[in-house]
Amino acid sequence: MNQSPFHSAVLLISCPDRQGLVAAVTAFIARHNGNILHLDQHVDAAENVFFMRVEWELGGFTLDAAAIAPAFEQVAAPFAMTWELHFSDQIPRMVVFVSKEAHCLYDILYRWQSGEWRVNIPAIVSNHPDLGDLVGKFGIPYHVISVNKEDKREAEAAQLALLEQLQPDFVVLARYMQILSETFVANFANRIINIHHSFLPAFVGAKPYHRAHGRGVKIIGASSHYVTAELDAGPIIEQDVVRVNHRDSVDDLIRKGKDVEKLVLSRAIRYHLNHQVLVYNNKTVILG
Amino acid sequence: MNQSPFHSAVLLISCPDRQGLVAAVTAFIARHNGNILHLDQHVDAAENVFFMRVEWELGGFTLDAAAIAPAFEQVAAPFAMTWELHFSDQIPRMVVFVSKEAHCLYDILYRWQSGEWRVNIPAIVSNHPDLGDLVGKFGIPYHVISVNKEDKREAEAAQLALLEQLQPDFVVLARYMQILSETFVANFANRIINIHHSFLPAFVGAKPYHRAHGRGVKIIGASSHYVTAELDAGPIIEQDVVRVNHRDSVDDLIRKGKDVEKLVLSRAIRYHLNHQVLVYNNKTVILG
Amino acid sequence: MNQSPFHSAVLLISCPDRQGLVAAVTAFIARHNGNILHLDQHVDAAENVFFMRVEWELGGFTLDAAAIAPAFEQVAAPFAMTWELHFSDQIPRMVVFVSKEAHCLYDILYRWQSGEWRVNIPAIVSNHPDLGDLVGKFGIPYHVISVNKEDKREAEAAQLALLEQLQPDFVVLARYMQILSETFVANFANRIINIHHSFLPAFVGAKPYHRAHGRGVKIIGASSHYVTAELDAGPIIEQDVVRVNHRDSVDDLIRKGKDVEKLVLSRAIRYHLNHQVLVYNNKTVILG
Amino acid sequence: MNQSPFHSAVLLISCPDRQGLVAAVTAFIARHNGNILHLDQHVDAAENVFFMRVEWELGGFTLDAAAIAPAFEQVAAPFAMTWELHFSDQIPRMVVFVSKEAHCLYDILYRWQSGEWRVNIPAIVSNHPDLGDLVGKFGIPYHVISVNKEDKREAEAAQLALLEQLQPDFVVLARYMQILSETFVANFANRIINIHHSFLPAFVGAKPYHRAHGRGVKIIGASSHYVTAELDAGPIIEQDVVRVNHRDSVDDLIRKGKDVEKLVLSRAIRYHLNHQVLVYNNKTVILG
Repeated sequence: MNQSPFHSAVLLISCPDRQGLVAAVTAFIARHNGNILHLDQHVDAAENVFFMRVEWELGGFTLDAAAIAPAFEQVAAPFAMTWELHFSDQIPRMVVFVSKEAHCLYDILYRWQSGEWRVNIPAIVSNHPDLGDLVGKFGIPYHVISVNKEDKREAEAAQLALLEQLQPDFVVLARYMQILSETFVANFANRIINIHHSFLPAFVGAKPYHRAHGRGVKIIGASSHYVTAELDAGPIIEQDVVRVNHRDSVDDLIRKGKDVEKLVLSRAIRYHLNHQVLVYNNKTVILG
Repeated sequence: MNQSPFHSAVLLISCPDRQGLVAAVTAFIARHNGNILHLDQHVDAAENVFFMRVEWELGGFTLDAAAIAPAFEQVAAPFAMTWELHFSDQIPRMVVFVSKEAHCLYDILYRWQSGEWRVNIPAIVSNHPDLGDLVGKFGIPYHVISVNKEDKREAEAAQLALLEQLQPDFVVLARYMQILSETFVANFANRIINIHHSFLPAFVGAKPYHRAHGRGVKIIGASSHYVTAELDAGPIIEQDVVRVNHRDSVDDLIRKGKDVEKLVLSRAIRYHLNHQVLVYNNKTVILG
Repeated sequence: MNQSPFHSAVLLISCPDRQGLVAAVTAFIARHNGNILHLDQHVDAAENVFFMRVEWELGGFTLDAAAIAPAFEQVAAPFAMTWELHFSDQIPRMVVFVSKEAHCLYDILYRWQSGEWRVNIPAIVSNHPDLGDLVGKFGIPYHVISVNKEDKREAEAAQLALLEQLQPDFVVLARYMQILSETFVANFANRIINIHHSFLPAFVGAKPYHRAHGRGVKIIGASSHYVTAELDAGPIIEQDVVRVNHRDSVDDLIRKGKDVEKLVLSRAIRYHLNHQVLVYNNKTVILG
Repeated sequence: MNQSPFHSAVLLISCPDRQGLVAAVTAFIARHNGNILHLDQHVDAAENVFFMRVEWELGGFTLDAAAIAPAFEQVAAPFAMTWELHFSDQIPRMVVFVSKEAHCLYDILYRWQSGEWRVNIPAIVSNHPDLGDLVGKFGIPYHVISVNKEDKREAEAAQLALLEQLQPDFVVLARYMQILSETFVANFANRIINIHHSFLPAFVGAKPYHRAHGRGVKIIGASSHYVTAELDAGPIIEQDVVRVNHRDSVDDLIRKGKDVEKLVLSRAIRYHLNHQVLVYNNKTVILG
C-alpha cells in the first residue's frame, strides 16, 4: 500500500467483537459521501476483539476535518470503540536516535530525502559524535547527549527535555545501543520503534550475533518492535531473516545482519507512518 | 486463514467501484443477524473495480440458506455486482490429473487424508498407468486415458465424458504433462488449476529447468495458474522460488523444483477451496 | 549436489589446521588415479580446525575398496586427522520414529519410493498405532512400542532391542513426540536426526507454535538437529522459516509450520545420507 | 566470506577437467609454505570444465609477490589452465554510472564509506546532473555526460575517454538507464556490472515493473549481471526476489523492487571485489 495521492482520512478502531461493526463504520462514511480507498478488518476470535482500519478520500466528504471526530464519536460510543483519526496532510515528526553504526541511518536518510516517506525529521540524537558529519551533510540538526553509567539519569533528562521541545510523533532507535528507562518509555507508549539484531525471542539483549554464531544457527534475523519496559520484549512489528552457514564468522553475521536490520526497521517505520499498526496483548495487528 | 469451524457463508463480489459498497453488503448481513468472521476488500484504483470477500456465521442468521441468494440479489442489482455465494457445508469435488511424477500427488493425498483440506476426490485421471498403484492404496478410483499425438481429440472426448459423469467443481493438473485444447479449457473457465515448473512468465512451455540451467539463473520457481487457451499464460494464483547455484545440475534443479511445485500447487488449491480467488484482466485477487 | 551416478568414495576429514593438508589428501587420490568429483573444505580460523569432504570416482582407481582405508591412514596419521570413509554402493539403513502426525512421514515415503534418496527403511517405529495403516500400504514393517510415564524405561529398552536387531546407520525422529533418555542418545551420537517445530533456539520444548503465537512473532520456523542429551540443544543441521501474520491462529501456525518441518527434515536427512555433515563444538559444517 | 585481514593472494583458475588438478595447485602452495585460507572448486561434469579459487596467506610464503606468477605458470601450463592472480593489498578501482535514481548509490556509498568494502571510487558518472549534490557531499568527483538520441556516439566517446583517464578495474551501472554500445562493452568484458530490475530472463528491457504488474505475478525480482552486447542477456551474478500481491500498484512494485535491486547489486559487487566470480558459457561460477 503506497501513501495515497489523495487528501484522505484514516480511522484505526478496536473494540469487543459484535454484529454490525463494519456496517456501522462504513454507513457513517457512506452517509457523508466518503469514498473508501482501503478497508481492512480483523477479528481475533480467541480474544473476541475486533480491529479495523479504513481510509477514505476527503474530497467531496460532507464533513469538515474538524467535524469528523465528534461525529464519529456518536458511532463509536455504543460499541465502546477505541479509535484514532489521522489525516494524510499531517506530516508526522520522527526523531531518530543513533549510536555509531550508520547502516540504518543511511537507509532512513534515503527514504526521507527521496520522498519515499512523507515524514519530517526535526533532529537526530546520538550518544556519540561519530555520525554528526554524515547527518550534517543532510542539513538535519544533530544532538550529542553522551551517556555514561554514572549519569544515565541526567542523560535521559536531557533527552526528554529535547523531545519536549521537538514534539515528535514518534521516536526511532536506529541501532541506538542504550537501554531506555521505564520512565522514558512510559512517555512514548507504542511510539518508540526499535530494531533488535536478532530473530526475537531468540537472543534477547547484548551481542546476539555472537550468540547466534555460538549456537550454530543456519539463519539469522532482525526484529523491529515497540519499546516497552522489558528489554526486547515489546510488540513485534516486523521481522526478517537471512541464511548463513559455517563459513560465516561473527563478522560475516554482523555484515549480513545489517542488510536485514535496515530493511526490517524501514518496513516497521513505514507501517507506523501509514497508521497501519494496532497494538494489543503485546502483539501487533498490521492492517492494509 | 483456516477453514472455519462454524457453518458459514461466503460472498465473493466484484463490480465497478463507487461509494457505499461495503456499507450495503455489511448492512445486509447485520440486518439478518449475521456475525462477520472475515471481511476483505480491494479497490483497483487504476481500473475502478471493487472486489470483496465476506464470510459470516450462519448460526443465528435469520435467512435460510436457500433464501440468501434471492435476498442478496436485491442488494447486488443496483450496484451491478457480479457475485458468488458458497456454503462451508458444501464439500467441493476435485478431480486430479497426473502423468508419471508423484510428488504433487503425495502432497495432495496427505492434505486430503489428514483432513487439512475439506475436499472430495472422486477420481484421479492419468495418461499413464504408473501412479495407479499408489492411488489404489488410498482407495481412490484411477482412470487411465492414454493420449497420443494421433488420438488427442478422442482422448479429450473420453476425459470430458468422464468429467461429465464425475461433476467436479474444479480440476487440478498435478504435473499432467499434456496440453489441453481450447475446447476443453472453455468447459472449465477459472476451474482448472495447473502447476508450471518455472517462475512465469520466464520459461513458458517445455523443459523449463533445462532452460533455466542454460541461462544460468540463481533462483528457480514454480507458478500455479488457472488454465486458459494460451499456454502457461493464465491468471497466476501463486508462485514461489528456491535458490540454486552453479553446483546444481539440471537434475538438481528438477529435484529442488519439485519441493517448490508441490507447495505452490497446494497453496493455490487451498485458496480455491476457501473461495478466496477472484479473476479479472487475466490476474487474480486473493482475498483473506 | 545430487547423488553421484558413479561408484564413488567419500572422505570426511577434520583435524588441526596446518599447511599442506589439501595437498596431502589430493596427492593421495591423484597418485592412485582417482578423479575428484567434489571437493569442499573449510577452515575455522577462530578454532584453528580444518574440515574437508572429498568425493572421487572409483572406476580406474588403483586401490581396491578394502585397501583404501589402510593406505589413507598413512596420510592421515601425521596430521592427526579424524576421518570417515564411505562408498556410494553402501545404501544406508534409516529407521524412522513417528507418533501420530503424518506430514513428515508422507514426505519421507515419497523420497524413498521415488528413488530421490538411496536409502533402506527396515522399519518404522511408533508409540501409537495410528500411522500403521499408511505404513502398511508401503510394505514397511511398523512396530508399535507404546510409551507411558510409568514404563518409559521399559519402552526404551524395547526400542533399543529392536534397533539392535535392525542395525540402522541412523535414526530419524519424524515428529516423534517423546524425549529420549541420555542413555538412548549416547548409543547413537550424531546419528539421531530430529525435527523441532520452532526456529531454534527460540521455543525449546513443548508447544512452540502456541508460544510463538503468544509472542506475536511475524515468522515461524523449524529446525533439524542431531539429538543430544540436552533437549532441543543439539547441533543444528538445517533451518527454514515461513511468514505468518495476525490473521493466523495457532492452528494456522501449526498448518503452515508442517510445510516447513517436512522440508527442513528432508534436507537434513539428505545431507546426512550424502555424508556432508561434520559436527564440532555442537555445530555442523555442511560440505558440498 | 569476509575480506581477509591477512595479506593474501587469490588464484582463480579454469581448465579442462582431469586428474591431479587440485593436487598440483595445492602442492605448489604447500611447497612455498603457503597457508590456505579458502579453497573452493567445482567441476562442471556436463562440460568437463574445472574451476577453482584458492586464497592463501602471504606471510611466510617463500616466493615474492612478483615471483608468484612466473612460478605458477610452470604449474598451469601442462594443464592448459586459464588463471588470474590477485593480491589483497591491491584496492580495486570502481567507477559508478548512475542516472536519476539514488537508492543503489546510497547503498554503495554506505558500504564504501563504512569500510565494508575495500574499494576506491575515483568518480561517479551520470547522464543527468540530479545526483551531483549527493555525490558532492561525499567528496567524490561527479561527471555529467549527457546522452541524447542524436549524440549517443559522442557521449560514449566522452565516457570512454574519461575511463581511459580513470583506469577503473571495473564499472558498475547503478540504475544507469542507457544502453551501452557493443564497442563500449567490448572494452570491459566481464568488467561491467549492471542491475536489471526484473527477475531475468523475465521482462528483459524497458519498464519491467509495469509489465510484471500487467502479468499479475506474485513475486518480483532483480538481477545483477555482467553486461554483454545483447541487452540484459549477460552472465547473471546474483538475483533475489520479493513477494507482491494484488494490492500493490506499479508504484508499490517500483518501491519494493528498489530494496531488492540495491541488495542484489551490492552482493554482486562484493563477489567481484573478492575475486569470487568465474564466467563461462554466459554463466557465472561463484566460488567461496
